[in-house]
Amino acid sequence: MKRLGILLSGRGSNFLAIAESIRLGRLKAEIAIVISNRADAAGIASADALGLKTLILPSKGRPREEHDQQVVTALREAGAELIILAGYLRLLSPWFVQQFPAAILNIHPSLLPAFPGLEAQRQALDYGVQVSGCTVHFVDEHLDHGAIILQKQVPVLPTDDEHTLAERILEQEHIAYSQAIALIASGDYRIEGRRVLPGRTKK
Amino acid sequence: MKRLGILLSGRGSNFLAIAESIRLGRLKAEIAIVISNRADAAGIASADALGLKTLILPSKGRPREEHDQQVVTALREAGAELIILAGYLRLLSPWFVQQFPAAILNIHPSLLPAFPGLEAQRQALDYGVQVSGCTVHFVDEHLDHGAIILQKQVPVLPTDDEHTLAERILEQEHIAYSQAIALIASGDYRIEGRRVLPGRTKK
Repeated sequence: MKRLGILLSGRGSNFLAIAESIRLGRLKAEIAIVISNRADAAGIASADALGLKTLILPSKGRPREEHDQQVVTALREAGAELIILAGYLRLLSPWFVQQFPAAILNIHPSLLPAFPGLEAQRQALDYGVQVSGCTVHFVDEHLDHGAIILQKQVPVLPTDDEHTLAERILEQEHIAYSQAIALIASGDYRIEGRRVLPGRTKK
Repeated sequence: MKRLGILLSGRGSNFLAIAESIRLGRLKAEIAIVISNRADAAGIASADALGLKTLILPSKGRPREEHDQQVVTALREAGAELIILAGYLRLLSPWFVQQFPAAILNIHPSLLPAFPGLEAQRQALDYGVQVSGCTVHFVDEHLDHGAIILQKQVPVLPTDDEHTLAERILEQEHIAYSQAIALIASGDYRIEGRRVLPGRTKK
């Protein structure tokens, strides 16, 4: 069973969906630690209520390298093998990324490479697309850029505002993230170029 | 019944799908003229075989403005009201675009804004997306950029190469283009920002 290290900054709805998948036996993994860079993150209170190990490491006003080192140390001490970003509002340093090669996952509320960055749902509406969705991807040194593990599409409806669209995408995020973690935890995949394909590399 | 002016450079499979939709009565429109900028375009032979008015206006080695003026004149003389780009491998000049405001349509084999330009299917595979599709959009002065009229998604499968993906997208193109033309020909839509929405502007 892979040990997950969860990083969040807010309510962590994706973290809660992952915890629920584990509870229901749909995702064979365990949550080793939940770390927030903000003391007021509601996700930490939820994690405490679930009896999970939690840690608050405030990032505000601290040098990135110093904070990243603290987080990596805490993840290591907890034995985390897969790092799951669940609304972690902080870009990881290249050094951080290198500590967990092909083992840091993020989820983004658009079909990347369309609409990276903040307010992806608003960007999608403003551009006038009719298909959007979510993307689970490996984290690399660039924003919302690593190899794609899983994408799910949702329609954008004429009646949508950013809230209704965000809600429809979030439903798919909650499904997609656990599926993607299960795939990576199983090891039964290979990376060819940027494509993440089912099945191990043929020897 | 709106009169369509078709511009193509190759076999024009989207043109043929539109002609078939008209024949079957699914699309209420008529094809006023089919123009190619290449003498060897197979689409022109197909159009001749269907008894449509055709015209070859070679673009090679000619100044863009002069060629664009010839094409616009021919479209006007044929009474074309909606201009349909069906694999027309030539960027329209701003002057051309201004001659037919909100009346020039193009189709692109990706979910724009992802993968504009040439070889969109190859770009999608190289990026490793799992959802792609096609986009019918108004043409503006920028490449693959105008307001989106219709998008359809297709899955990208682990076994896909650019040919199988292109084929799966093309099936949806053939459906999407006629649907989009029907919507614009009906006039029953409005543009808010970049969003194309059903229903006329409320007075």
